Amino acid sequence: MPYRAPLADFTFLLEVVGFANVAATERFADATPDTVAAILAEAGKLCETTLAPLNRAGDKVPARLENGVVRTSPGFAEGYRAIAEGGWIGMAAAPEHGGMGLPMAVATCVNDMMGSACLALQLNPLMTQGQIEALEHHASDALKALYIPKLVSGEWCGTMNLTEPQAGSDVGAVRTRAEDRGDGTYAITGQKIYITWADNDFSGNVCHLVLARLPDGPAGTKGISLFMVPKLIPDADGNPGARNDLKVVSLEHKLGLHGSPTAVMQYDGARGWLVGEKHNGMAAMFTMMNNARLGVGMQGVAVAEAAFQQALGYAMERKQGKTPLGSGAIIDHADVRRMLAQMKAEVFSARAIGLACAVAIDMGRATGAAEWQARAALLTPIAKAYGTDIGCEVAHLGVQVHGGMGFIEETGAAQFARDVRVTAIYEGTNGIQAMDLVGRKMMDQGEAAYRLCDEMQAAAEAARAQHPDLAGAVWTATEALREATEALVAMPPQDRFAGAVPYLRAFARVLGGHFHMAAALADPARLPLAQFAIKRMLPEYAPLLAQVREGAAGLYALTPEALSA
Amino acid sequence: MPYRAPLADFTFLLEVVGFANVAATERFADATPDTVAAILAEAGKLCETTLAPLNRAGDKVPARLENGVVRTSPGFAEGYRAIAEGGWIGMAAAPEHGGMGLPMAVATCVNDMMGSACLALQLNPLMTQGQIEALEHHASDALKALYIPKLVSGEWCGTMNLTEPQAGSDVGAVRTRAEDRGDGTYAITGQKIYITWADNDFSGNVCHLVLARLPDGPAGTKGISLFMVPKLIPDADGNPGARNDLKVVSLEHKLGLHGSPTAVMQYDGARGWLVGEKHNGMAAMFTMMNNARLGVGMQGVAVAEAAFQQALGYAMERKQGKTPLGSGAIIDHADVRRMLAQMKAEVFSARAIGLACAVAIDMGRATGAAEWQARAALLTPIAKAYGTDIGCEVAHLGVQVHGGMGFIEETGAAQFARDVRVTAIYEGTNGIQAMDLVGRKMMDQGEAAYRLCDEMQAAAEAARAQHPDLAGAVWTATEALREATEALVAMPPQDRFAGAVPYLRAFARVLGGHFHMAAALADPARLPLAQFAIKRMLPEYAPLLAQVREGAAGLYALTPEALSA
Repeated sequence: MPYRAPLADFTFLLEVVGFANVAATERFADATPDTVAAILAEAGKLCETTLAPLNRAGDKVPARLENGVVRTSPGFAEGYRAIAEGGWIGMAAAPEHGGMGLPMAVATCVNDMMGSACLALQLNPLMTQGQIEALEHHASDALKALYIPKLVSGEWCGTMNLTEPQAGSDVGAVRTRAEDRGDGTYAITGQKIYITWADNDFSGNVCHLVLARLPDGPAGTKGISLFMVPKLIPDADGNPGARNDLKVVSLEHKLGLHGSPTAVMQYDGARGWLVGEKHNGMAAMFTMMNNARLGVGMQGVAVAEAAFQQALGYAMERKQGKTPLGSGAIIDHADVRRMLAQMKAEVFSARAIGLACAVAIDMGRATGAAEWQARAALLTPIAKAYGTDIGCEVAHLGVQVHGGMGFIEETGAAQFARDVRVTAIYEGTNGIQAMDLVGRKMMDQGEAAYRLCDEMQAAAEAARAQHPDLAGAVWTATEALREATEALVAMPPQDRFAGAVPYLRAFARVLGGHFHMAAALADPARLPLAQFAIKRMLPEYAPLLAQVREGAAGLYALTPEALSA
Repeated sequence: MPYRAPLADFTFLLEVVGFANVAATERFADATPDTVAAILAEAGKLCETTLAPLNRAGDKVPARLENGVVRTSPGFAEGYRAIAEGGWIGMAAAPEHGGMGLPMAVATCVNDMMGSACLALQLNPLMTQGQIEALEHHASDALKALYIPKLVSGEWCGTMNLTEPQAGSDVGAVRTRAEDRGDGTYAITGQKIYITWADNDFSGNVCHLVLARLPDGPAGTKGISLFMVPKLIPDADGNPGARNDLKVVSLEHKLGLHGSPTAVMQYDGARGWLVGEKHNGMAAMFTMMNNARLGVGMQGVAVAEAAFQQALGYAMERKQGKTPLGSGAIIDHADVRRMLAQMKAEVFSARAIGLACAVAIDMGRATGAAEWQARAALLTPIAKAYGTDIGCEVAHLGVQVHGGMGFIEETGAAQFARDVRVTAIYEGTNGIQAMDLVGRKMMDQGEAAYRLCDEMQAAAEAARAQHPDLAGAVWTATEALREATEALVAMPPQDRFAGAVPYLRAFARVLGGHFHMAAALADPARLPLAQFAIKRMLPEYAPLLAQVREGAAGLYALTPEALSA
């Protein structure tokens, strides 16, 4: 079943998450409903007709390394060109550099569709978008002028080089060295691993943002600087010139995303330009990472959407056994219906959370209000971890709906499960996201979380007359979340961390209940799904929050020796 | 980290699930603790030294079809020979046909180890074991005498041929035809799909048990007969003779289990021998399937064990970031510890449930008591579905513990996740298992379930003095399970089916709590894991049982149109 862009869902959800506030700002005044609808329709067409047909080929014919050059999967070059020509790479970039200047909420919908259609290819512009953002905020004017327009147009691509064998989640352990060449540039030397789209055969240049340490950089994250290290060194006119001293050493053999080359990169005194201040590279990286985290969260949603559509199509066609409704199609078996309902409900919840996060980012930018920025900061780890967790879970359910066919690669259901798996790991594992939520994002003593709880409870109160059961369930769950948050912020760090993942999941369950209720209020046709989500899925918050209260002692009582016994 | 057979766990668990009762029967009087320990140690050695090293090769060099002949993965022939020579194929078969006559509980431990070591290869003897069992119960004496000894010795292999393109979960839709040849044999014609280990290059013959319909067979499952259809027709001396009219058409390209050939089989008037009565093939199939279901459930446990061991080894070695305990190894990060604890706790629970089921099977056979048979019948779908669900979940957690490395195929963590995925599908999908639990297995109006609840509550009462919190939690959860069961048996079928999967999972959660408590009582060193399981995992029963009470109306309110909107 071919992918169909869920345009009506996007329009509806943007309404539910309050996109009207964004469109009411001066900065995003152009984002009228008609304009947004037209943009999404255009992107949807691209995804349905050009990108989705590439997805299987990207899996079957992986990117490969030939004599140091990456050869991409069949059709990916054309797909990339279509994305670039549509202006989708720079859709959120500032118009002064050729971008569309679209709100993040709209760009997020477009990335969602591209991720559904072909995740392996979509990762490429997603990386470039992150780089554009880092440069916009931190690079010198000269670097901006040279790089951003070419990245926006798709002439050049961008990558992020953080990880080294000993420096994964612990970025502060980076050993790649940078030395001042005395001519305003630096010599970068070291090895980076897991570099997504480190090279390709369809862009004029590949621009690597590399974390490295200057000789006088202190140990840890406070001694890391960020450098732009292009594959081809731009000449005086800004055209790609001499080859830089860097190379793709090898490509990884991965569980999924075969169409996206993941490389080991070697830098041998490669010429680089400092981005931002010395020793302050992590600040720039965080700019990039925060929005990349939302982007990755939506990758999970995107694959979940595609997996759901395929499973739904199969379940409506496949006949097997006597079904209670007499259609004979397996969708009429109660448990198949249940699985599909869960898939759809999770996609809705995760997409709503992601778009609410995007709206908060937009409002933070447009208004500068600290409350919106805090809201965005709070929602980002939830959007990333929950979006990618349900990406894995929904893809897994998609395989299950297909029965034996799901295990056969030609069906495509298994590819979704393989491709999406890494989204729960890269850009900060979901455990790291949860630690971010209960650590850094609770440095306000829970203020941002309480403000969100207030809003959700006010909405529940307002809904009580129309849907007393649902509103009551959401109100009660929110109150439990508030109380657990109070308990959490009073805990020492290790106890917080011990309950971080269950807390994040419970938070997502409550947010999901809230948005499903809002959906039912806005559109009575959405009521059955809201009932499913609130009656059957929301109650999971209780045992999750019970785990939050347990703290770390019980975990550390399980010593490595006890676990090994 | 190489696989290590968890011998101490097996010995301990056999004690916890009451294997002493089995050893006290006349039939299994030989199964003394020393004998069982010696048998498990011998099997463990085979698994550690001979089978585990084959696992990666089976993945990297899949079985392939060459000119109609299946070529198996490197080393599989030698591995198979070692399994056969150890007597492990016929370990549960009757001594009169050369089997070891071991209790199912012991055979289940051996299959568990073989599944951890190399699931793709272990599937082969698992299929043969199922066939031996079906023949023992249903075949004529002549067929038994001819086939069973050769299957037991491993000289020949056995397969099960049920599925056809239109007949998957709905076995009654089988179209393969059988016609009486008038010479005591039948001509079998049709196509079968998803045939596991349909052929190999290491056994002297391949014996297919094939479901087919005689011309006078009524429609549905009541018109299906079972036939033995050997690849090579035995001559008068019982040696492999002329080639039968059957062939392997193609092998599937699967998500995992690459070392296990999964075939489309074509029968063109192949010569077959009736097994059991005409039109009663499903009875024989059910004999085979019931124990195969336990076997598949343990495959999930087996892969979970292997995934856990590998993740634990990695977490103890991998240094990353400052850890609270100062070791620097990621096992000291609270969330990594949490994931490992969950993996170990799930493996324990699922293994205990599987072994309790095996003990019930053994007791049913040894004593003929209906209560034990009903217990085995009740636990079988739980052992299958929960064992394989946690197989998938634990393997998924294993990938997560590895971080980026988990997504790289060479690590092996992803292979576990790919291989185990089908166990939740084959031998009856886990949805089918849950329907079996709330349908066929509740035709006693819940009697067997209530009897189990009584036992669990009595055990909780007995534990209350020593562990009041844990015992109280298990008692309360069991009471909730009892009440949900009462509600369930009062429901019409569709409402039962709507809550079948959550009910099965809740049942497993309660059983898991029960067995963890028993473990803590028997060995204080097991208390921390029991506390983790009972305080952090058991509470999930509540929202699961809440789903059970919802019934089907809410699901069917989500029409195909609403799901497609």
